[in-house]
Amino acid sequence: MIRMNHKTGLAALAGLGGLTVASPAWAAVSAETAFVFNTFSFLMMGALVMWMAAGFAMLESGLVRSKNTATICLKNIALYSIAGILYYLIGYSLMYTDVSGWIGSFSLLYNTSDAEIALLGAEEATPELIAAVTGNGYSVMSDWFFQMVFVATAASIVSGTLAERIKVWPFLLFVVVLTGIIYPIQGAWTWGGGWLSEMGFSDFAGSTIVHSVGGWAALTGAIILGARKGKYGPDGKVHPMPGANLPLATLGTFILWLGWFGFNGGSQLALGSALDASAMAIVFVNTNLAAAGGVIAAMAASQIVFKKIDLTMALNGAIAGLVSITAGPDLQNHLLSIIIGGIGGVLVVASVPLLDKMRIDDVVGAIPAHLVAGIWGTLAVGIFGSGNLGVQLIGILAVGAFVVVASAIVWLALRFSLGIRVSEEEEHAGLDTMELGQEAYPEFGRGSQAI
Amino acid sequence: MIRMNHKTGLAALAGLGGLTVASPAWAAVSAETAFVFNTFSFLMMGALVMWMAAGFAMLESGLVRSKNTATICLKNIALYSIAGILYYLIGYSLMYTDVSGWIGSFSLLYNTSDAEIALLGAEEATPELIAAVTGNGYSVMSDWFFQMVFVATAASIVSGTLAERIKVWPFLLFVVVLTGIIYPIQGAWTWGGGWLSEMGFSDFAGSTIVHSVGGWAALTGAIILGARKGKYGPDGKVHPMPGANLPLATLGTFILWLGWFGFNGGSQLALGSALDASAMAIVFVNTNLAAAGGVIAAMAASQIVFKKIDLTMALNGAIAGLVSITAGPDLQNHLLSIIIGGIGGVLVVASVPLLDKMRIDDVVGAIPAHLVAGIWGTLAVGIFGSGNLGVQLIGILAVGAFVVVASAIVWLALRFSLGIRVSEEEEHAGLDTMELGQEAYPEFGRGSQAI
Amino acid sequence: MIRMNHKTGLAALAGLGGLTVASPAWAAVSAETAFVFNTFSFLMMGALVMWMAAGFAMLESGLVRSKNTATICLKNIALYSIAGILYYLIGYSLMYTDVSGWIGSFSLLYNTSDAEIALLGAEEATPELIAAVTGNGYSVMSDWFFQMVFVATAASIVSGTLAERIKVWPFLLFVVVLTGIIYPIQGAWTWGGGWLSEMGFSDFAGSTIVHSVGGWAALTGAIILGARKGKYGPDGKVHPMPGANLPLATLGTFILWLGWFGFNGGSQLALGSALDASAMAIVFVNTNLAAAGGVIAAMAASQIVFKKIDLTMALNGAIAGLVSITAGPDLQNHLLSIIIGGIGGVLVVASVPLLDKMRIDDVVGAIPAHLVAGIWGTLAVGIFGSGNLGVQLIGILAVGAFVVVASAIVWLALRFSLGIRVSEEEEHAGLDTMELGQEAYPEFGRGSQAI
Repeated sequence: MIRMNHKTGLAALAGLGGLTVASPAWAAVSAETAFVFNTFSFLMMGALVMWMAAGFAMLESGLVRSKNTATICLKNIALYSIAGILYYLIGYSLMYTDVSGWIGSFSLLYNTSDAEIALLGAEEATPELIAAVTGNGYSVMSDWFFQMVFVATAASIVSGTLAERIKVWPFLLFVVVLTGIIYPIQGAWTWGGGWLSEMGFSDFAGSTIVHSVGGWAALTGAIILGARKGKYGPDGKVHPMPGANLPLATLGTFILWLGWFGFNGGSQLALGSALDASAMAIVFVNTNLAAAGGVIAAMAASQIVFKKIDLTMALNGAIAGLVSITAGPDLQNHLLSIIIGGIGGVLVVASVPLLDKMRIDDVVGAIPAHLVAGIWGTLAVGIFGSGNLGVQLIGILAVGAFVVVASAIVWLALRFSLGIRVSEEEEHAGLDTMELGQEAYPEFGRGSQAI
Repeated sequence: MIRMNHKTGLAALAGLGGLTVASPAWAAVSAETAFVFNTFSFLMMGALVMWMAAGFAMLESGLVRSKNTATICLKNIALYSIAGILYYLIGYSLMYTDVSGWIGSFSLLYNTSDAEIALLGAEEATPELIAAVTGNGYSVMSDWFFQMVFVATAASIVSGTLAERIKVWPFLLFVVVLTGIIYPIQGAWTWGGGWLSEMGFSDFAGSTIVHSVGGWAALTGAIILGARKGKYGPDGKVHPMPGANLPLATLGTFILWLGWFGFNGGSQLALGSALDASAMAIVFVNTNLAAAGGVIAAMAASQIVFKKIDLTMALNGAIAGLVSITAGPDLQNHLLSIIIGGIGGVLVVASVPLLDKMRIDDVVGAIPAHLVAGIWGTLAVGIFGSGNLGVQLIGILAVGAFVVVASAIVWLALRFSLGIRVSEEEEHAGLDTMELGQEAYPEFGRGSQAI
Repeated sequence: MIRMNHKTGLAALAGLGGLTVASPAWAAVSAETAFVFNTFSFLMMGALVMWMAAGFAMLESGLVRSKNTATICLKNIALYSIAGILYYLIGYSLMYTDVSGWIGSFSLLYNTSDAEIALLGAEEATPELIAAVTGNGYSVMSDWFFQMVFVATAASIVSGTLAERIKVWPFLLFVVVLTGIIYPIQGAWTWGGGWLSEMGFSDFAGSTIVHSVGGWAALTGAIILGARKGKYGPDGKVHPMPGANLPLATLGTFILWLGWFGFNGGSQLALGSALDASAMAIVFVNTNLAAAGGVIAAMAASQIVFKKIDLTMALNGAIAGLVSITAGPDLQNHLLSIIIGGIGGVLVVASVPLLDKMRIDDVVGAIPAHLVAGIWGTLAVGIFGSGNLGVQLIGILAVGAFVVVASAIVWLALRFSLGIRVSEEEEHAGLDTMELGQEAYPEFGRGSQAI
């Protein structure tokens, strides 16, 4: 089976050209038709992944308190913007261009191919010009677009964990480094064809490369930033700070679920053959079943452990299920997807109190859903899928160590220069009035639980 | 004209193979290209229909009172999850595998074809392997995905009607039976190629098979469950219980409208020919015009009857317009779509007070929008479309009788075992604090209308 | 290079047929495959643009005060419905059928081609029937669908500016004229192949033809309607009236951003060749980068000017970035997109206080984001793109003059007949209770900022 991975699938894709030389030739997919399919798939699937930025914005808006809601909205739209610009300026080249094993090139800007420019500018589209373009398998910038929305996802994960006490501009500076440098470097190791890829590390759509990376950066930040004032009492008691708008959090989860079809499905990286279309269909099904398993398992675990069905656990169960299947959504036994996702959902319910015990304050539960489930999903490929468990573990640890160290350096540099934490007074009053000078819900009276 | 229906279109689809043997051959769509188109259409259209689950969640979140909002969010994400799992475990096979006239096979799990597994696992994709896969017309699991999101829609309809007083777990048990058994059995009659299909019953995308089924199950549940406390005074007066968040309800309606392009458009079941693409375009146009007609007609009727333009009537008018055109969105006279949808919108305005007079408490108006408009839309195919009015009536009655009886058995069994209704105290306090132990909007003070 | 524009690209599209006669023939895209691609692109991209109607609804819902929220929801779903019906009844024909230079035909209703009806109704799909259909390049109604969602966008822009004081029915009557007559007439000048097109006016996806048109109609309405009571004090002081729900406004902006991929990407008007797919990929990338540039620039400008990062400025910065790139999203130098979008973002921050100084009350900031940025984006094509700056200016002025005059006539006619403004009492109480008899958030207590 030809199994493709982000960009490392390029060689395989070229190999697919052979598929189309079936006999009679016109019964197969022509090279130009395959090019259109592959490109269109990147664009549509990328649009779905872009939509996940809205999902994170809504999830986090719903799970913070109302006095910090406008700020989290701002951070989300700003981080998505920064991710796109930085990935254009340097990130993509670092990750995918001439990767030597550890890192790609430091070239500035990433533009379309000469072949495409020639075709677009030609008086006449000759077979030679078309062949030069279609030889690449897909339009160069459609791949850029698809890869760009992935780096934005990694950045989105961080904002939720650190909400309600981090300053806006320093947070955005961290995003600059994360999306321009940290993410692309570790991404080069696997998807850029670097050393982890050569070892056989397997991460279909990024349980480790995207979700754990966001999770590690968030965890490092949470430790350096510290918990929200009042979250953990001196007696070790955890003070709940419930989110202000649970329907928005629910909407955010549904958006993420929808976007994940693009995230995992598009990571097949091609659509221009019966093989690719079949593989993509299998990926869609596993993605959905794993999320469903995550929801039901988290609900059941919540009912058993807390004697209540916590909605936020169900929502994070869905996300954990999705993260869990992301490393290997190409399973042909779909029942396994339900189980893998279900274990992800249980891990969320188990991890949330554990983090609280360690006084690590993760406002939206992103560390359980993205980091813990991301590790689990990557291991699951070694257990149930085609990966090697030892190699999977090496990949998890290598990426984790790199991201923790790199993030810590950036967080500490920001802490001792600009400062990363708002003042106690600002935190109490809320970031919205202090940093933005506006309220998210100026007309809605604050109820008894407002702090 | 080759008119396709869910799965019964399979034979027609095979026939379409003939279309591609045009001369010169390379001017037509190749078999493999058609396979990719058909599969990709199922996946993208299915993703749009999946998005309708979010639409129902937002619509219902907006139309319940704030004390029950988190619970309705939970029910919606849980029912979508259950629908997917049950339809994988048994539902799809019951509906589509070896339907004998009344019902399909009881086989467990539904997996991809041997041909696809062979292609995916092959060292080389030979023309023979590709031909074996493309002979099916589309990837097996892409069809499963598309059909699965339909059963979830039927379940979503039920949750809105029964909101604010039904217990979470018993409701979800009903969803297990509805999505695993009740929906698939009646679905087999038409889309599985069973007896209704043989009679010529025509329901393109499911006015009856999806929307009425949800509506009948909701109606049966509403009667057995009873109205919310205080909804109907002893003097026959109706006490309005307005929804807490109308922008969310509006968002939900727009989501449903968008998703419906997938619902109706994808029900063409193929995209791999000029004929299918043309048909899908017509379906998109009619779907949009019918919804527009529903909105305007419901607004006008609301202005005339109530002397106010009720927003919730306009929203349900859109949904009713969409449901009305769902049985026959392939009309070539688009003006008829506006009229059919408009009548659906008027029916909503007429049915809401009628239900209240019968003291049937439908929290979100799902029975008018899905059941009444579903019946109307199915009859409209007999009046304006290619269907036979008598056969359409038989289909409506047969499906209705089956779903009412089967649902009643399940509802009554749940009522006399676990109980289906929360205590009066829980209903008064709200399901959120009692069943979930959390509030949807903990910080927003309750206004004067809160009950 | 073959550069296509809305509908004027038809001739170019026919020319593209030549592209597919590459040798060997089966290596290229067949005519029928191209037809399917082109049609499917219109449908999927059109669905994304339809989704923008939800984006406007959420943006405006979030930026009005809670007492006017249900009304703005109603206006948004109603105007989208009206736009669809009017564009079907007369608008599309006026814009695209037999355009003589100034205007198309006055024929009623717009239906699919005889060739498609023949194919859909045939016993057998003969090569001749297929060739007759595929000769058009795409399914007739898929193009109607795509063009229809554009006119709806123009109408959406108006509702935001005039919120909180305009009567519902007179506003909707204006929408009838705007979408049925005003928009189509000026649209015919360029996209219909009329005189502006012949002059070489270049507006890829409608910075002028869609966004400025909405902006001019809104500006004219705002002047005739007057500002909200209390917005501008007698001392020249501006009284801020902050929106009630900023997360919804954020959601609306993300929806618009997603939809804009369809808006600009679909305006390539074809997908059935390597050239078109490459061009569409470039359009997606530029669209995203311009929006990102708009966000960051508006944030920075807001920080510098107001010493705070205003969220609504960031949101309107995204929209302004998108509008700015809409006239020329086919740039091969993507860095220019960031700059063009960034200038759009700065223009928003500059224009908002300017409008206030002129006492033009634009509730949501639609005039800066759509009109000012629309003018800038259209000029940018003359500066950086393939357009001629003088011709671009003529196009801007001609469309502006026509829309202002035509809109003024309609607004004044409505003002002196039905009246367009609610009473002072109604405005104070809010349009929701007075016009709709319902509240958007009946349970959420009004905070101190409620007026």
